[in-house]
Amino acid sequence: MTTTQRYNVAVVGATGAVGAKMLETLDKKNFPINELYLLSSKRSAGKELEFQGKTYTVQETTPESFEGIDIALFSAGGSVSKKFAPEAVKRGAVVVDNTSAYRMDPEVPLVVPEVNEADIKTHNGIIANPNCSTIQMVAALKPIQDQFGMSRVIVSTYQAVSGAGNEALDELRTQSKAFLEGENLEAELLPVSGEKHHYPIAFNALPQIDVFQENGYTFEEMKMINETKKIMHDDKVHVAATCVRLPFFTSHAESVYVEVNKEGVTADQFKSAISNAEGIVLEDDPENQVYPTPLSSAGKCDVFVGRIRKDLDNEKGFHLWVVSDNLLKGAAWNSVQIAESLIKNNWLQK
Amino acid sequence: MTTTQRYNVAVVGATGAVGAKMLETLDKKNFPINELYLLSSKRSAGKELEFQGKTYTVQETTPESFEGIDIALFSAGGSVSKKFAPEAVKRGAVVVDNTSAYRMDPEVPLVVPEVNEADIKTHNGIIANPNCSTIQMVAALKPIQDQFGMSRVIVSTYQAVSGAGNEALDELRTQSKAFLEGENLEAELLPVSGEKHHYPIAFNALPQIDVFQENGYTFEEMKMINETKKIMHDDKVHVAATCVRLPFFTSHAESVYVEVNKEGVTADQFKSAISNAEGIVLEDDPENQVYPTPLSSAGKCDVFVGRIRKDLDNEKGFHLWVVSDNLLKGAAWNSVQIAESLIKNNWLQK
Repeated sequence: MTTTQRYNVAVVGATGAVGAKMLETLDKKNFPINELYLLSSKRSAGKELEFQGKTYTVQETTPESFEGIDIALFSAGGSVSKKFAPEAVKRGAVVVDNTSAYRMDPEVPLVVPEVNEADIKTHNGIIANPNCSTIQMVAALKPIQDQFGMSRVIVSTYQAVSGAGNEALDELRTQSKAFLEGENLEAELLPVSGEKHHYPIAFNALPQIDVFQENGYTFEEMKMINETKKIMHDDKVHVAATCVRLPFFTSHAESVYVEVNKEGVTADQFKSAISNAEGIVLEDDPENQVYPTPLSSAGKCDVFVGRIRKDLDNEKGFHLWVVSDNLLKGAAWNSVQIAESLIKNNWLQK
Repeated sequence: MTTTQRYNVAVVGATGAVGAKMLETLDKKNFPINELYLLSSKRSAGKELEFQGKTYTVQETTPESFEGIDIALFSAGGSVSKKFAPEAVKRGAVVVDNTSAYRMDPEVPLVVPEVNEADIKTHNGIIANPNCSTIQMVAALKPIQDQFGMSRVIVSTYQAVSGAGNEALDELRTQSKAFLEGENLEAELLPVSGEKHHYPIAFNALPQIDVFQENGYTFEEMKMINETKKIMHDDKVHVAATCVRLPFFTSHAESVYVEVNKEGVTADQFKSAISNAEGIVLEDDPENQVYPTPLSSAGKCDVFVGRIRKDLDNEKGFHLWVVSDNLLKGAAWNSVQIAESLIKNNWLQK
């Protein structure tokens, strides 16, 4: 981004999986940083991290950490955001929060810039970054909603282990090696850190992401359902989700079924809507086996869509396959996009 | 199975991934074998295999291989079945064919014993064993169809590599090791042997199983759609499928959405229907994190169902998670079940 003014930026959760991608993205997108502050829990404080050739010592997050900060990017868990985001706002910072703490708060905009950028300006100091699996889906569905209307979405996800953090990545690596060497698999973390039971993720599929709710859906599934309605400004759209953790490191994939309102939409028109949308790349040529995969999309900021085809029975039904790097568009890049928008549109000051 | 009479059995494709499971299942189920013949391609002929303490030399399949055979279990690819199944029938054998060669032939019954066992008796020498991903889904849906009626199914699959054969399993193993050692991934087989392009399966997801059809669906997806209608005797039910290959060795999982005809069905009634069905095991207790996974179901003959919950918008919609060992219920065990039924019901002779 090009601008003459420069900003004081704090990254909260700088030592985590998303934190690392935040720094990578701030660098890659040439974000106009004046001073950078890397913050973490007490446990990780003191670590040193490189950014643009300079070494930074990670500091413990305190209310005072946010004195003089313009933009604070939070990604250190919901309880950290609950505790420190108000402190940051009190000191004049605008918070972009990549946890579920404020997402469904009616006072807090929940934003995917390709979908509802204008919501950012309604902020009262906090803008929420949606759940990774939601972001890539609504980005892909936005042009469909705009051009054809949309009554219903049914999604089954194929989610990477990095969504559960660095320790989960270590668990996948360790278990995979053990399995290949014929050793027993020990599960200590997944599907959910702190839950009663843990199951191996290596060479397996776990139909649980986050904890179960009373209605039998997981919190991850409810996030996809509720956040989609909020971001797309449509309380009436039917959304159903089944979320599954799979043994790959990066990028979520989603098998999405969508019913449009308009009659007579062809698969070609559907593809054309997708391919013209900002931030979306159509990779869809079955004859030449062209479709996105987690490995092919890893490390890229876009949302990739393929396998678009019309339902064989429902004239208004379409199927698509949506893949994106869950730590980039699903987290760090979406947060940095929101920060860029705050600057570009002069929405930092209320 | 207990019977006084014993039968001459041929296993065609004995050296393959499914062939090995055929032998394992014939042994485990104590199938009443008189003489056993292990057949293969010319390339694999001469190999020696153990069965119930005896060593058998695998022989090349010829028309004469089927002289005196009562039951021939085929699992060596569609072209082998097309060539040799009629030769076996001509010589008085009844063929249980685990390839796609005859599945949609109106003269050939396509059977999952828990669903449509009575169709076996209509055979003219050949009974087709459905596609692995179809079998476990229709087995789980049969009690639903019976008790509540069923108008619509949308399935996204999570399919194991063993469905693509022994060489694909080697590829997953080799690529996984290479990836963990930071080496480049070389793909030579998956997603489909003989296709133009190959992509790594290790730590990835490939939304292509079998070749693409002109309508943009893969052949695997069309198998699920067409076979489900034939097996369940319902041309009108709407079926949509998205089939995805994933980096695990054994057992397919499926995220299934189904709409029933009956009004007012509760999730508990739905669960009760599933748990009372033959061959189906309900593993569904979210509070205690109980649900089936590929690893937990591997090596077992049953179909496991969990994550049953009502759709939040559609009063007649339900979601479920169906897991089964694709080489057992999805192939070998279903074939042996058909053979058992032929004997038990005196349907061998026409």
